[in-house]
Amino acid sequence: MERHPGRPRRVVIIGGGFGGLTAAHALRRAAVEIVLIDRTNHHLFQPLLYQVATAALSPNDIASPLRTILRGQDNVTVLMAEAREIDRALRVVRLADGRDIPFDALIVAPGTRHSYFGHPEWETFAPGLKTVADALRIRERILMSFEQAAVLDDPREAEPWLTFVVVGGGPTGVELAGAMAEIAFRGLLPDFPMLRREQLRIILLEGSGRILGGFSERLAARGLAMLAQLGVDVQLHAAVTGVTEKGVTVGDRVIETRNVIWAPGNVAPALLRSLQAPLGPHGHVHVRPDLTIEGEPFVFVIGDAALCDDETGQPLPALAPVAMQQARYVARLIADARPPETRAPFRYVDRGTMATIGKARAIAQIGPIRTAGVFAWLLWSVVHIFFLIGFRNRVRVMLEWMWYYVTFRPGARIIYSRASGGGQRRSGS
Amino acid sequence: MERHPGRPRRVVIIGGGFGGLTAAHALRRAAVEIVLIDRTNHHLFQPLLYQVATAALSPNDIASPLRTILRGQDNVTVLMAEAREIDRALRVVRLADGRDIPFDALIVAPGTRHSYFGHPEWETFAPGLKTVADALRIRERILMSFEQAAVLDDPREAEPWLTFVVVGGGPTGVELAGAMAEIAFRGLLPDFPMLRREQLRIILLEGSGRILGGFSERLAARGLAMLAQLGVDVQLHAAVTGVTEKGVTVGDRVIETRNVIWAPGNVAPALLRSLQAPLGPHGHVHVRPDLTIEGEPFVFVIGDAALCDDETGQPLPALAPVAMQQARYVARLIADARPPETRAPFRYVDRGTMATIGKARAIAQIGPIRTAGVFAWLLWSVVHIFFLIGFRNRVRVMLEWMWYYVTFRPGARIIYSRASGGGQRRSGS
Repeated sequence: MERHPGRPRRVVIIGGGFGGLTAAHALRRAAVEIVLIDRTNHHLFQPLLYQVATAALSPNDIASPLRTILRGQDNVTVLMAEAREIDRALRVVRLADGRDIPFDALIVAPGTRHSYFGHPEWETFAPGLKTVADALRIRERILMSFEQAAVLDDPREAEPWLTFVVVGGGPTGVELAGAMAEIAFRGLLPDFPMLRREQLRIILLEGSGRILGGFSERLAARGLAMLAQLGVDVQLHAAVTGVTEKGVTVGDRVIETRNVIWAPGNVAPALLRSLQAPLGPHGHVHVRPDLTIEGEPFVFVIGDAALCDDETGQPLPALAPVAMQQARYVARLIADARPPETRAPFRYVDRGTMATIGKARAIAQIGPIRTAGVFAWLLWSVVHIFFLIGFRNRVRVMLEWMWYYVTFRPGARIIYSRASGGGQRRSGS
Repeated sequence: MERHPGRPRRVVIIGGGFGGLTAAHALRRAAVEIVLIDRTNHHLFQPLLYQVATAALSPNDIASPLRTILRGQDNVTVLMAEAREIDRALRVVRLADGRDIPFDALIVAPGTRHSYFGHPEWETFAPGLKTVADALRIRERILMSFEQAAVLDDPREAEPWLTFVVVGGGPTGVELAGAMAEIAFRGLLPDFPMLRREQLRIILLEGSGRILGGFSERLAARGLAMLAQLGVDVQLHAAVTGVTEKGVTVGDRVIETRNVIWAPGNVAPALLRSLQAPLGPHGHVHVRPDLTIEGEPFVFVIGDAALCDDETGQPLPALAPVAMQQARYVARLIADARPPETRAPFRYVDRGTMATIGKARAIAQIGPIRTAGVFAWLLWSVVHIFFLIGFRNRVRVMLEWMWYYVTFRPGARIIYSRASGGGQRRSGS
């Protein structure tokens, strides 16, 4: 294989999410050796993760082993490992186990975690939803809460177990609350004849004056109406000031609950500090117009962890399409070994935003088109299933959904707890 | 509802396995109130559990929530709880959380755990396979072992990670070893181009002179040949004398391995001691011909935890059909409120035994018929899918298998580890 002068030969990618995986794929014909590093062994279709948390889908429906996805691509090696530090001087990625992985070009796409606004201790009681492990933990809590409530004779005691609070009115929070209402009222309640519908409460807390900030006012209002119809109690101007084992504090009120799910905010991982590039307030990297960092023409940061403005100076949203377009842009720069001074800046092409609310209801905003209801939901379903990686998963998920739609019997309601009784302890009793 | 004199009104069933669930179902038209107690929230189709351990199936394919299975049955309440003690004098089952559940009739069907022959410390390094949690733990170990081996440059160091030892040559051990050979050689190896086929070893250790003791000599020999063809190294007269983090000791040999799965022996749970009935050497209850214990006409022990002889004085095997037939027999005695002196003893009708070895190969022994190969496997598949509880699961599993058969790409290969790096620690590095 002939090498062009100045072309990076060894490309290291940190993260197997939408950004990292798309970058690896886009470099499949380039004369480079790729090492893809991820802490897990799988790519995860995060937009459907809330369906795992609410027991509508299994982890295997929305995750695929990275090695299997990349099986046919000869120039990539998958490494299941944790990247701890990036050493710009030595041009290596240092792993948690001490090994150094050298690179000529580096694509950093580690994603983010939820922000607890300076209160990391809240996480114990209010898990976020970013990984398969998160989703399984939340699912187990929901299922165990019903089991707990079922054995309590005093309805007053059962109340905190049957109160489910979702914090954050962005797309994740809205989708979670909608799915939880469906699963609680229509999926689980029929299995617990000792519980009454009135005992169940699904609350969505949003600190600002409206939900779905990224959507138009009209669509957000439609979303709000859909949530209300599903039985979700949406509370606006409700900034959370405390989270304990007992419940959530909003101003001077305490909502007693054993089930809090955290959806707002994003913080970027500590790994990025070692890049020694300017960081935003939550640890995101301020990237240059070509997604590099100052002085490093072949070190890129893409996806949720990058702070990148659009033409109007607005920061780009943390969405899969942004990460994927960035990945393809960066792959082209590497494959062409394009010198920094000749690079056109990255431009995001917005193809629309969608959110689903419960079953067969959604809102969508695609250029000038704004639509809500069943049509938007069908659109949402097609787009999401289409983007699922791996033909098999598409068929599976389609079948799962059809079945769920017809029967209202969610498929993934097995409590996995390892030790007997462990599930009860874990859910905070 | 008119009550017959002496008829038990409140029936408590301990265990939601084949025995307990069949008993609950068989009592669906009886004028009784049933409480079904299980530590988990689901019924598990244990005969296919080894397929979850080897990543061919997902837990949801072979488990269904007990509440959903029994949703249509008005006279049963499901209790997710751990039965700690049975108080014959007070006629209550005491739960781990201190509550007492009163009974008129009691059906004890708790199943068994694997026996470590007086070495409980071996369990840490050689997990058994009885629960969904067991299967997920074993699956994670297998997947993590491949990941570990992939990053070791020295083949000598990689060897223990690529050596998989199954202890026990009964049906469980044979099925596990066969499935592991399939998954390792045909499922995982293509995803790890840095590993060579010769580095992989699947070893089945059996203490006696033959595998599959419950089958005829000829069929067992066919089974042995099938395992050899799949690449399993079957070692007979290989009684295990030690298990550590480093490996398994057999006589004066040490097999270095990070992956040991334990299949032999059965011990009944400590709960049974509180029955104050005669116990066998491994804690099983010696039951009377009507499956009761002495002096208690309405306290029954059924399934794997019961020691029950057939007409020839041989103990009945620990198989699902035995437990299910016992459950129906016991349910009839309760529903008819039949006094002890008028009861015909329980008789097991043997409808055959089967074991599957890898894909599309099995052995079956049905009355006078003994068959091995693809036909036996088809028979095995039909019988197993037919007995899966819940129509949906049958369809799912059928589709899963068809897909797996066509593609050799197992579906359930996601490492769930909760904490980053946790999987590595758990797998013993």
